[in-house]
Amino acid sequence: MDKDIFDKMHEECGIFGIFGHPEAANLTYLGLYALQHRGQEASGIVTYDGKDFYQEKEIGLVADIFSEDRLNRLKGHAAIGHNRYSTTGGNKLENVQPIMVNYALGTLSMVHNGNLINATFLRDELEAYGAIFQSSMDSEVIIHLIAHSRKKELTERIIESLSRVRGAYSLIFLSEQGMIGVRDPHGVRPLSLGRLKDGGHVLSSETCTFDLIDAKFVRDIEPGEVVLINDKGVTSSSPFLPENPAHCVFEYVYFSRPDSDVYGRNVYQIRKRMGKELAKEGDIKADIVIPVPDSGVPAALGYSEASGLPYDTGLIRNHYVGRTFIEPQQAIRHFGVKIKLNAISGLLEGKRVVVVDDSLVRGTTSRKIVKMIRAAGAKEVHVRISSPPIVSPCFYGIDTPTRQELVASSHSVEEIRKYITADTLTYLSNEGMFRAVYQSETCENQHFCTACFSEEYPIPFTGEEIKQLGLFEIDPPSAQ
Amino acid sequence: MDKDIFDKMHEECGIFGIFGHPEAANLTYLGLYALQHRGQEASGIVTYDGKDFYQEKEIGLVADIFSEDRLNRLKGHAAIGHNRYSTTGGNKLENVQPIMVNYALGTLSMVHNGNLINATFLRDELEAYGAIFQSSMDSEVIIHLIAHSRKKELTERIIESLSRVRGAYSLIFLSEQGMIGVRDPHGVRPLSLGRLKDGGHVLSSETCTFDLIDAKFVRDIEPGEVVLINDKGVTSSSPFLPENPAHCVFEYVYFSRPDSDVYGRNVYQIRKRMGKELAKEGDIKADIVIPVPDSGVPAALGYSEASGLPYDTGLIRNHYVGRTFIEPQQAIRHFGVKIKLNAISGLLEGKRVVVVDDSLVRGTTSRKIVKMIRAAGAKEVHVRISSPPIVSPCFYGIDTPTRQELVASSHSVEEIRKYITADTLTYLSNEGMFRAVYQSETCENQHFCTACFSEEYPIPFTGEEIKQLGLFEIDPPSAQ
Amino acid sequence: MDKDIFDKMHEECGIFGIFGHPEAANLTYLGLYALQHRGQEASGIVTYDGKDFYQEKEIGLVADIFSEDRLNRLKGHAAIGHNRYSTTGGNKLENVQPIMVNYALGTLSMVHNGNLINATFLRDELEAYGAIFQSSMDSEVIIHLIAHSRKKELTERIIESLSRVRGAYSLIFLSEQGMIGVRDPHGVRPLSLGRLKDGGHVLSSETCTFDLIDAKFVRDIEPGEVVLINDKGVTSSSPFLPENPAHCVFEYVYFSRPDSDVYGRNVYQIRKRMGKELAKEGDIKADIVIPVPDSGVPAALGYSEASGLPYDTGLIRNHYVGRTFIEPQQAIRHFGVKIKLNAISGLLEGKRVVVVDDSLVRGTTSRKIVKMIRAAGAKEVHVRISSPPIVSPCFYGIDTPTRQELVASSHSVEEIRKYITADTLTYLSNEGMFRAVYQSETCENQHFCTACFSEEYPIPFTGEEIKQLGLFEIDPPSAQ
Amino acid sequence: MDKDIFDKMHEECGIFGIFGHPEAANLTYLGLYALQHRGQEASGIVTYDGKDFYQEKEIGLVADIFSEDRLNRLKGHAAIGHNRYSTTGGNKLENVQPIMVNYALGTLSMVHNGNLINATFLRDELEAYGAIFQSSMDSEVIIHLIAHSRKKELTERIIESLSRVRGAYSLIFLSEQGMIGVRDPHGVRPLSLGRLKDGGHVLSSETCTFDLIDAKFVRDIEPGEVVLINDKGVTSSSPFLPENPAHCVFEYVYFSRPDSDVYGRNVYQIRKRMGKELAKEGDIKADIVIPVPDSGVPAALGYSEASGLPYDTGLIRNHYVGRTFIEPQQAIRHFGVKIKLNAISGLLEGKRVVVVDDSLVRGTTSRKIVKMIRAAGAKEVHVRISSPPIVSPCFYGIDTPTRQELVASSHSVEEIRKYITADTLTYLSNEGMFRAVYQSETCENQHFCTACFSEEYPIPFTGEEIKQLGLFEIDPPSAQ
Repeated sequence: MDKDIFDKMHEECGIFGIFGHPEAANLTYLGLYALQHRGQEASGIVTYDGKDFYQEKEIGLVADIFSEDRLNRLKGHAAIGHNRYSTTGGNKLENVQPIMVNYALGTLSMVHNGNLINATFLRDELEAYGAIFQSSMDSEVIIHLIAHSRKKELTERIIESLSRVRGAYSLIFLSEQGMIGVRDPHGVRPLSLGRLKDGGHVLSSETCTFDLIDAKFVRDIEPGEVVLINDKGVTSSSPFLPENPAHCVFEYVYFSRPDSDVYGRNVYQIRKRMGKELAKEGDIKADIVIPVPDSGVPAALGYSEASGLPYDTGLIRNHYVGRTFIEPQQAIRHFGVKIKLNAISGLLEGKRVVVVDDSLVRGTTSRKIVKMIRAAGAKEVHVRISSPPIVSPCFYGIDTPTRQELVASSHSVEEIRKYITADTLTYLSNEGMFRAVYQSETCENQHFCTACFSEEYPIPFTGEEIKQLGLFEIDPPSAQ
Repeated sequence: MDKDIFDKMHEECGIFGIFGHPEAANLTYLGLYALQHRGQEASGIVTYDGKDFYQEKEIGLVADIFSEDRLNRLKGHAAIGHNRYSTTGGNKLENVQPIMVNYALGTLSMVHNGNLINATFLRDELEAYGAIFQSSMDSEVIIHLIAHSRKKELTERIIESLSRVRGAYSLIFLSEQGMIGVRDPHGVRPLSLGRLKDGGHVLSSETCTFDLIDAKFVRDIEPGEVVLINDKGVTSSSPFLPENPAHCVFEYVYFSRPDSDVYGRNVYQIRKRMGKELAKEGDIKADIVIPVPDSGVPAALGYSEASGLPYDTGLIRNHYVGRTFIEPQQAIRHFGVKIKLNAISGLLEGKRVVVVDDSLVRGTTSRKIVKMIRAAGAKEVHVRISSPPIVSPCFYGIDTPTRQELVASSHSVEEIRKYITADTLTYLSNEGMFRAVYQSETCENQHFCTACFSEEYPIPFTGEEIKQLGLFEIDPPSAQ
Repeated sequence: MDKDIFDKMHEECGIFGIFGHPEAANLTYLGLYALQHRGQEASGIVTYDGKDFYQEKEIGLVADIFSEDRLNRLKGHAAIGHNRYSTTGGNKLENVQPIMVNYALGTLSMVHNGNLINATFLRDELEAYGAIFQSSMDSEVIIHLIAHSRKKELTERIIESLSRVRGAYSLIFLSEQGMIGVRDPHGVRPLSLGRLKDGGHVLSSETCTFDLIDAKFVRDIEPGEVVLINDKGVTSSSPFLPENPAHCVFEYVYFSRPDSDVYGRNVYQIRKRMGKELAKEGDIKADIVIPVPDSGVPAALGYSEASGLPYDTGLIRNHYVGRTFIEPQQAIRHFGVKIKLNAISGLLEGKRVVVVDDSLVRGTTSRKIVKMIRAAGAKEVHVRISSPPIVSPCFYGIDTPTRQELVASSHSVEEIRKYITADTLTYLSNEGMFRAVYQSETCENQHFCTACFSEEYPIPFTGEEIKQLGLFEIDPPSAQ
Repeated sequence: MDKDIFDKMHEECGIFGIFGHPEAANLTYLGLYALQHRGQEASGIVTYDGKDFYQEKEIGLVADIFSEDRLNRLKGHAAIGHNRYSTTGGNKLENVQPIMVNYALGTLSMVHNGNLINATFLRDELEAYGAIFQSSMDSEVIIHLIAHSRKKELTERIIESLSRVRGAYSLIFLSEQGMIGVRDPHGVRPLSLGRLKDGGHVLSSETCTFDLIDAKFVRDIEPGEVVLINDKGVTSSSPFLPENPAHCVFEYVYFSRPDSDVYGRNVYQIRKRMGKELAKEGDIKADIVIPVPDSGVPAALGYSEASGLPYDTGLIRNHYVGRTFIEPQQAIRHFGVKIKLNAISGLLEGKRVVVVDDSLVRGTTSRKIVKMIRAAGAKEVHVRISSPPIVSPCFYGIDTPTRQELVASSHSVEEIRKYITADTLTYLSNEGMFRAVYQSETCENQHFCTACFSEEYPIPFTGEEIKQLGLFEIDPPSAQ
């Protein structure tokens, strides 16, 4: 995917929680570190020591924020943490999670991965009843609904509140009553449960964190499930009406770490199979297959395997990119992708090159990469994308650009090929994607949200929301 | 190589200079950014605008140090910059280069890549004549020699001074007289000359910087060459006695960026050929070849190509490592390599795995990686190192650990294999390395320093220096 | 008074607001700078430009917090600001005012000087209705009451909300509807209205700010008055039941700046008259009158004038104290008051010295000062306090220590004299204080709160509050 | 004096040293804190623990620079420290003292109070011999002279080096050989020796530091004296040719703290006597005498005593000024002196006011103060300066402005009176100043440098220096 510093198809969030371990804050820090790819803008941890709650949050990267001193201040055996990316909310500390508030039942802290559809409506309603909002996060409405509930138990309040909410949410709460994990009835975002060798339960967006802290994967939290974790262990309930599962398939395509198992399947191996399917779907005469590093590596390996074309590393990535690189304003030229990538001298000269990436958003980066490969002497450049065209924005937590910026929403594949100046361009088909996911020739999608590829949104919108979100607003039926 | 946050085989320096461009500081900033791998501890830039000199330096990474404000303060058409790593000198600002001083002829600034052998002797002598040293850098003696010289011209003073110095040095000076580049008579460290499209000359440790700033590679500075670059263009002289070339071969093995051409050859392609030679030197029955990311990638690809074994990416690197990650002190376990690497779930299960890295210093990281691969279910683990055993420290600018810490200085290959718990372990032979470098079956080394692999130091030591450096002090002839 | 770095009789707050001036933020910055003595812990400004609200707040001193950059970000023609001191709330950013929230009617920002008596009760009640509190400031309940009100107009909501609140409050609100100033029905804390020469209205805790920004004093906001300032000018209303005025007399004694006019009278001149009354109340044979700098200067001048004893400056104050001086922990002695004060060599030798201060809280600093004066050679040391003994804590906004720490709450004057090792000690009588305030021989207090001197609290407490606040809990009726 | 943030008659330096105390750094920190008035731009401490030297220095105020951590890093029983103000050298860390270098005899650290006349000449000469200068401080030449000396002993090298230097210097060195204090042969700047109760020797610019750390004043270092303090105690020598004493009288007028004894006399009492002499020299009918706070306080008290006019505090100083207050650039008016001072409302109304200050440099601040007093309603304003007109710059360490900016260098008293808009203006006469200093009716100056008042420079200049310094360059003999 052409991403981060270039094209701003930005990431959502990573959440992590731990209960019952004397080093809860340190392990949460490690967990957030391993989830850094899910949000690089800000990070926070709240802990509870049975008496007081402690909070540290800041704009920045996990490793920069949590000094020894700060971690030492985060006392307690229970902790929840959050990595954030969001263009809404801006760069303000009040928009950094965990949210922590005092309310009628005591103290409540929460982290949220996902996005709510009816947050604006609920916010207006809550404000009419006297609620005061401190942040511009949609997540804050959940807290207010809980605070306004008249139920006696926190879990009941959470269930009552979430019944009013429409959208995608994986949540972890920390309170005097324990740690509570929830996944929305569609199961849009992942949330997994693990267990530490020396005691303690863990909740995490991805299983790669379990590997780091030596926790054992236990199971995924089910869609619509609520788990309460406290000194008595794990108590589960499923209070919501059952819905069709709608797991975000984009976690496989791009968002999750390749070493994680998501929705029960290993991400890396799916990506590699996507590359194989891509090769099977279209034959091309070429000399070499290279990935766009590092996003295209698994698919390029799969492509090479299925096509028989030799795999090589034609582009080198500068590992110090990712941190805040600001181009000098007065610079006489735009450096763009060159800050990040460079071609290996001599390797591509005279070659017919297949270059593989996991997705294509705006096309501007792909265009630069094609030019870089040609400048390195390639005779032909064939771009292969190991997922279908992105035609529609995500409203469930992936921070896609607007429909207008999604090049595939208004351009044909041939138009995009011309724009990125490739000799050929193909995408993986929807069927190919699901063959790779299910590892089967004949199955069809029964569990996944593919809204960004298909415009089929599994969670319904009201008419008002369709207007607000600008859904379907391009391509009005023309009179011609 | 098992490196950076783990084993502390630390890097030397990167230097960069530009003359005759209105955005000298901005381009130097980009150059240092591209040379970040050569030194991550501190960075500095000095510029000259024909009237005044400007200086900004700091402990930290290039992208963190040079804010818009700081770059704006660095006025002028000429600039030199430096990235540093050094365990000597400690974390002190006075040890960050460029060095800048006022002396009899005006102002002089200098950056140095390499290491001087007789710095201690010269320093004692200079102090006896009244010199005051402000830093603990060996580089400072060069400046004092220049200041004490009675020659009228700066270039003459530089030549006179360098005649007294023994060791490895690529240098760039900035003065009222222009920018001056020098490479020591053995040509130990690289230094290349480039030319900007819109005017201006560039000097750089590596050619990858030229790609970034759209400069054209002109040629390498020759061993023993002195080039003066000013408004009249480039003037070259070769005032030193000719010596046998002794280019650091370790630049190919590990230190340079793969997209650079060093000593006239592309680094990536040499590394890939090293992997091929490694495969040719020893046959092993296995199912899969994986690299230690990212250092082992080119050699693993070469190994796969030569051996016919399939290449895959069994270990995933966390891209946010590299920045300052400090493990919580009170952590109950040591996370070590897990912070950086994780195995792909399922991929290695039941496999006979060949894992390739570019070098092996202490062995502690290799040991952890072998264990990680086994924990992921591998049936056999075969470690392949695409360079010879490192038996002796470098005194020419690569910050190797002491001889005692170099596992191969006192242990046989079989002993190391046991220590790292591999099923088999082989290194590339010296001949194999040079076949890969020269891309020829029959040639022998005529141009390279291989001291770290062979203990053959091309620049002579005095008896006193041998004592000071602790050279040859292990392995006294045993009586047995 | 023995204060700040020593005895922690800490200050309350200063508030400032401006409407209708293009440089609202800059003038608010100057206003807060002039009010720095009212709170040195944290400071904040909110501005409004007719469209958006801007906020900058931080722990620290005004001059350190508001950089050029920050002030430039504070756009708009209207601004409110706050200086804070508070031991409650701790050192947390969420407790720094202005409070700014979004609620049903839009955005609302508020600053508060004073203290609410029934905040805990109201907070419990509001939480029961679903309110979420973000800070530990009593001021936040006002905001929640406003948000929960069903009135249509902000002013009506404010009036309704404040009818439920008991305590001391001078408030400035900033909203889309304009700037609103309120003073509680007892008028405990000051709040004055001014007018800028070139247009714009100003509200300020003290009139010294008007001098600095060239504003003209218009009048005090009346007790119980609500003023709305917007583009149409100033609209006043008095919606609350009339109460007896209970202005804090301690503003005269210690808290306000001497160059301010408070409640219509100049502070400096009252303090000087307090010194005169003090001299009239008790005759002592002495050689010299000196102040504790700078708090005792006006009273010492008045004492000298009335007694005929010569005034001199026997103690010198280090002007760099006031900033954060932290004594080295391992220091072998406690430096205490010597960091701040030093005696003039020779001046006090052999003299009978009268030393005057404005108040005495714990007595520890007075004790050190007496010792310092004796060490400088004084023959006798007579301590004179230009206000009555402080016997009871303030619950209306002055951050007094607990009753236990108020030395006069449990010790006679003679006991205090012994403790501070003075030859004699006298306080100004209550009558003397009001003679000085009213500048009349025969009047009695009809307008002032003297609770700290008399235990007569003008605003009633509930039984529950008396328990919570620990009121009257020393000196239970003994059985003897 | 109209000073600091307004008129930039800037201060020189304060130095402090301690030998033989386990908390050398902590006590030096306190000493520098007490000497903060002598330099507010930067501060540094070097310590020695018998083995290593430790150094911490920074731009900023003492209390901001030396954190607990930094003080803990400054190990050892010996320490020297420096507070700096200097407009030369700019805001650069390399210009912050102590200077610390390695040279032939080991390590040498030095602090300097004063100014050298022939530094430029010596610097040129030293550079010609190969010396490299790292700073732009004149003090650095002393270090280079010592490093270039061929003497065996450090003390001998210091003596040899100082024989080549012309100017004002109080110096403290710290080396492996001990702590060495030196005062120039004219004794221009003060330097006093003290002894700690629990052992250890102290050197300090002023005696006020002794009071703070409970040290006993022993004696002043004599002009031309060199004292070596080490484990054997204090050894004194007087190796330089005797010169007429030329103590800076301006230390009495303005620079030293009033609680210090300087050159054997108490500063406060001299200042008070200067006010008395001022009153005696000129009679004026007035109602009240007020000081410019705080510089004019002692003289105003003396004036009041001698004239019989009542003393009062008509102007109030904002104690938070002194820290970095930066006026908003876009501010529509210049706030100037109002940031710092404000008149007491009502006090000056209708009065004939005598306002006393210690000196007058440019006149701009006095002008603002006169206007402020008139705006407060004064009928007449009479300015009294308790020192003679400053007609010539100081080249011995007081950072006066250039001759052009000294209003008295080119204007008569009557012209200055008009400029500052006072009704009358008088200065203390030279004779009056010395009557106050010597406390005698008939004595004349035999010990003091009065160059700034008289243009009589006690240390000779070469013709070249006269040109460089721009001495005597105004007022060329006119042809009229």
